[in-house]
Amino acid sequence: MSHTVAVAGASGYAGGELLRLLAGHPEFEVRTVTAHENAGMPVTAVHPHLHSYSGLEFAPTSAETLAGHDVVFLALPHGRSGAIADSLAGIPLIVDCGADHRLTDADQWAAFYGGEFHPPWAYGLPELPLAAGGTQRSALSGARRIAVPGCNVTAITLGLAPGIRDRIVMADDIVAVLAVGTSGAGRSLRTELLASEIHGSAGPYAVGGVHRHVPEIRQNLGAAGARNVTVSFTPVLVPMSRGILATSTARLAPGIRADEVRESWEAAYGHETFVRLLPEGSFPKTADVLGSNLAAIGIAVDEAAGRVVAVTAIDNLVKGTAGAAIQSANLAVGLPETAGLPVNGVAP
Amino acid sequence: MSHTVAVAGASGYAGGELLRLLAGHPEFEVRTVTAHENAGMPVTAVHPHLHSYSGLEFAPTSAETLAGHDVVFLALPHGRSGAIADSLAGIPLIVDCGADHRLTDADQWAAFYGGEFHPPWAYGLPELPLAAGGTQRSALSGARRIAVPGCNVTAITLGLAPGIRDRIVMADDIVAVLAVGTSGAGRSLRTELLASEIHGSAGPYAVGGVHRHVPEIRQNLGAAGARNVTVSFTPVLVPMSRGILATSTARLAPGIRADEVRESWEAAYGHETFVRLLPEGSFPKTADVLGSNLAAIGIAVDEAAGRVVAVTAIDNLVKGTAGAAIQSANLAVGLPETAGLPVNGVAP
Amino acid sequence: MSHTVAVAGASGYAGGELLRLLAGHPEFEVRTVTAHENAGMPVTAVHPHLHSYSGLEFAPTSAETLAGHDVVFLALPHGRSGAIADSLAGIPLIVDCGADHRLTDADQWAAFYGGEFHPPWAYGLPELPLAAGGTQRSALSGARRIAVPGCNVTAITLGLAPGIRDRIVMADDIVAVLAVGTSGAGRSLRTELLASEIHGSAGPYAVGGVHRHVPEIRQNLGAAGARNVTVSFTPVLVPMSRGILATSTARLAPGIRADEVRESWEAAYGHETFVRLLPEGSFPKTADVLGSNLAAIGIAVDEAAGRVVAVTAIDNLVKGTAGAAIQSANLAVGLPETAGLPVNGVAP
Amino acid sequence: MSHTVAVAGASGYAGGELLRLLAGHPEFEVRTVTAHENAGMPVTAVHPHLHSYSGLEFAPTSAETLAGHDVVFLALPHGRSGAIADSLAGIPLIVDCGADHRLTDADQWAAFYGGEFHPPWAYGLPELPLAAGGTQRSALSGARRIAVPGCNVTAITLGLAPGIRDRIVMADDIVAVLAVGTSGAGRSLRTELLASEIHGSAGPYAVGGVHRHVPEIRQNLGAAGARNVTVSFTPVLVPMSRGILATSTARLAPGIRADEVRESWEAAYGHETFVRLLPEGSFPKTADVLGSNLAAIGIAVDEAAGRVVAVTAIDNLVKGTAGAAIQSANLAVGLPETAGLPVNGVAP
Repeated sequence: MSHTVAVAGASGYAGGELLRLLAGHPEFEVRTVTAHENAGMPVTAVHPHLHSYSGLEFAPTSAETLAGHDVVFLALPHGRSGAIADSLAGIPLIVDCGADHRLTDADQWAAFYGGEFHPPWAYGLPELPLAAGGTQRSALSGARRIAVPGCNVTAITLGLAPGIRDRIVMADDIVAVLAVGTSGAGRSLRTELLASEIHGSAGPYAVGGVHRHVPEIRQNLGAAGARNVTVSFTPVLVPMSRGILATSTARLAPGIRADEVRESWEAAYGHETFVRLLPEGSFPKTADVLGSNLAAIGIAVDEAAGRVVAVTAIDNLVKGTAGAAIQSANLAVGLPETAGLPVNGVAP
Repeated sequence: MSHTVAVAGASGYAGGELLRLLAGHPEFEVRTVTAHENAGMPVTAVHPHLHSYSGLEFAPTSAETLAGHDVVFLALPHGRSGAIADSLAGIPLIVDCGADHRLTDADQWAAFYGGEFHPPWAYGLPELPLAAGGTQRSALSGARRIAVPGCNVTAITLGLAPGIRDRIVMADDIVAVLAVGTSGAGRSLRTELLASEIHGSAGPYAVGGVHRHVPEIRQNLGAAGARNVTVSFTPVLVPMSRGILATSTARLAPGIRADEVRESWEAAYGHETFVRLLPEGSFPKTADVLGSNLAAIGIAVDEAAGRVVAVTAIDNLVKGTAGAAIQSANLAVGLPETAGLPVNGVAP
Repeated sequence: MSHTVAVAGASGYAGGELLRLLAGHPEFEVRTVTAHENAGMPVTAVHPHLHSYSGLEFAPTSAETLAGHDVVFLALPHGRSGAIADSLAGIPLIVDCGADHRLTDADQWAAFYGGEFHPPWAYGLPELPLAAGGTQRSALSGARRIAVPGCNVTAITLGLAPGIRDRIVMADDIVAVLAVGTSGAGRSLRTELLASEIHGSAGPYAVGGVHRHVPEIRQNLGAAGARNVTVSFTPVLVPMSRGILATSTARLAPGIRADEVRESWEAAYGHETFVRLLPEGSFPKTADVLGSNLAAIGIAVDEAAGRVVAVTAIDNLVKGTAGAAIQSANLAVGLPETAGLPVNGVAP
Repeated sequence: MSHTVAVAGASGYAGGELLRLLAGHPEFEVRTVTAHENAGMPVTAVHPHLHSYSGLEFAPTSAETLAGHDVVFLALPHGRSGAIADSLAGIPLIVDCGADHRLTDADQWAAFYGGEFHPPWAYGLPELPLAAGGTQRSALSGARRIAVPGCNVTAITLGLAPGIRDRIVMADDIVAVLAVGTSGAGRSLRTELLASEIHGSAGPYAVGGVHRHVPEIRQNLGAAGARNVTVSFTPVLVPMSRGILATSTARLAPGIRADEVRESWEAAYGHETFVRLLPEGSFPKTADVLGSNLAAIGIAVDEAAGRVVAVTAIDNLVKGTAGAAIQSANLAVGLPETAGLPVNGVAP
């Protein structure tokens, strides 16, 4: 029995990717797509790649247009999801791709985002290994309100969480540097996102601990069992549209031998469909997962440096956003977790 | 009075860049260019962008073709420079862009490169601040044999050396992740360097402390005053031809306040032509230095993480190789250090 | 009832794309994948994006390994398909992605390819409007041997064929210039295909009428009704992995008014699933069809120049190769023509 | 004796490139740079690659700030140059990079641009071979007002003008398709110029004869001797920042043999520094001329199609704009034509 779906804020990149994936979903049926500035326009005028939506127009984003659906996906700027969510009380399942319901700590919200704090929703990272045992998946089964993780957060968290939980690595001096594609910045008209500025160039942003994803990383690694998490996190914009390649390093815990490291990751992910641990000596590139819901991870032990290096590749728009939203929604409504989600990348 | 120049191994990317820069040099006059496989071909058949070399052909690389020049630049694979250098004893100045004469420690050579060890030459990183005071520049004045640093090494070294020398940051747990362009891998026919594999994708290589540049980084930071250097170094290939964006982090030394950090870098580089420290809150992208001999550096203090983050952008073929070679040669023969070296990048 | 499938030559880009698409096909079941040099290797070692093929290895390409399947897709270099096809007489359906069975004229084969001529197979471009009425689709229903068109050929043919058939445009002075991605050149280790050579650069190849696709374009437009076809065809390699953007122009036939042009294309493609005629004033970009089996076409009449301009975007690996192969195979075995074929692109 | 220079509208890409090239010019000394929105900002805040301009700020663009210079370069949007030029009567030399003074025909201006028509200035394409004999160079010596050609126009004109003048090819059915980089569209905040939209994609614009460069192409080929020029011109935006690769085709004139074609181009360009005719069978790519003032041209005769194909590569910001401006200014003030202009490209 299929579920009717509305996607709010569907004129951006995350919203477009939700539509692309939902078009191939066997049980979710998109009935309504909404937008703010683009209300009234054909979907294909904004997303000319979404040929299957020919004939459909964006409705305005409002409580009225979203009412009456079984599932509502919100792909709105942060601050907007929280505001509208209150008026959607009757919707059985809401999945928020924005940040409004991710953080559990109001002070961290105030420090990194500001504005009104909204209480956290079930956190949509099913594969996150928990200190308490099991995975975050258990919190998603039957959930009615889900917060989709930040894309950078997903890449770093999946890269390091197994070793954190198993006390193989220490969380007190994590360093993560991410090569990120431009779609993560959204469809924003900013000079620094123009193609002429991005072609042939790599440059960082939000350097020095100010990126909004920092508290969410700490929160996740805390859930995996870390007491004191410190993370130096630097995203680097590189000339590609999609993809995150996270190089995350953590110090090897005292007394742990190199040959004990790998089995922690194998235990965490050996049975996961959407997390692929690569063989010893292999590391992923983002093209390997482009368009798919996979996180591909390679790990190495640098004994001279005393650090474990975890390299994680995800598609920021799929496993980093829209795919995670659908995966979590599948769990929430009792569908197979993998329904409608590609496992093969589009390459070359 | 001009100096006659030969460039050996000029059919690769580093050699081509030497030719490009030397074409605009007021005192170095290219007389001979040599190649191995391409001997006998017109220079413009291999480097169609070097229009000013129309009419010139590659000679074979040999002691005979290189003899009789005032300056010989070697742009050969490692292992080859050392072998040919012995037969060029009469050349007043040899500048080696390869690795053969960089390392001072034969054990490190054996561990990371293998093959015959060659004694170190004067190290061609003029701006390197030394523990003993002053800079590496003093070792280059009048030098007859110069080893050009590795490109990744230059980016990391320049990023962190001031704080290391001034004991602002600690060298015992450095983490550096570099977004690097494909030209650093040379003109090698390898599947993973095909455009179809690289477009729209980021992926690491030499993960886990095995990259050959590791001992050279340690050597440099040792020269800057560090006792025990450990460095976790991960290069990430991104879809651009040129450029290195190094994100290098080091732990803040105990007792150092955030506001004490910046002056160390200012003191080291305030008078340097080719190292530009960006204003507080600004960070470079590689396009800012493309085609130029500049290293542009931005630094931030992440107090929560207890780390200083230094972001360095260089053009791997210029400041990372050919520009460094010419800058060092300028010093060696007593020319103005800046002769023939662009300070403006080519952008967008 | 599903059909067992083998893919021969599956380690190249076309073969990889066949595997990607077949993984999502409801009725074709890949049992065997073969390769030449990579025989014995895991599929995911060569195609790390094809996670669903984990555990499968390449068999050698031979009559033995291909025997016994319902459908064999050949993704071999030209000259190789013809040779092996003879030994596969018992296979119910063979679909050749190479050139060996495309041309009907042995002289043209000799002039443009050389080597042994093989008789033509049913030509796999279902939407091609025929002078005789109807489309090429009718030749594919029940076919046992199918030749998949060349990718550039598909883009130009679909762009102009309606107007040719309806005598809206003339075929005697066609000019087509194509921006093409690098994957069309295959996984070949050639210097000019290295990422460093391709980034930030556009350059032509096969200039002046020597490209092997020229006779096939003439053959198709002849099938659409043209008597004397001449075509000036220039492919330009641009920095992207996938996609063909064909700008094809033909002179307006005498007496045809601009407002009569559009209806010809509308009549030809109005009911086609995989050819999308864009609204007046709209033109496609290759990202609109990336990963999908669509050809998106925009047309304009340049009255001052007396020419119709047809701009066609396809993904060279899908509608240009692997998607066309599967679409034709669907027709051949009586499945819905659209089975397993994406209509939405992957963007941004 | 050096000439004082002001650059108006210097915060865009054309203006930035003027500054880059002028920094290396031996006789032009930049005293003033102006901007509209960015007035008061440091030059390096807008152009972080122009390190040599550290310390300089943008003045507002006005008659007052531009007064008193020997040479004023205008890099303003069309419509703006004409307006301000009237107030700069006392400036010895004004070089306009915009369109306001290019067209000789007021009707064409009205049809393609609209707004006030300004009388034409000396046209800055020195190498243009004229029907009357000689080149356009003669009109530039001593000129006081110069209009720099449109970038696409330069590429097409240089590609075909020799054959037009020598009646080797016919001008009545020219077809030109250009692969163009994004910098040609300027630093405009438009969604379709965002990196995410451009990466990995090629798409046309101004299809069907509506591009503003059409009348200028006709004007130039008329100056080369054509009576009736018709040109079908389609620019295709491809994923690179700089560069134009123009594929221009014209029908071979009746009675002309293929072996008579080449000498026309050789005669026109054999002595030109900035136009390089490639050897038979060779064709340029844009990387060959990136950052340089060269136009590289390859020609082929497609006998079957009855057309000559001229492939021209230029850097749109150099030979297409800023380099042409400086080359023309050199001629105007009596300096060596090549002063300050690079002939080698920056590659790879």
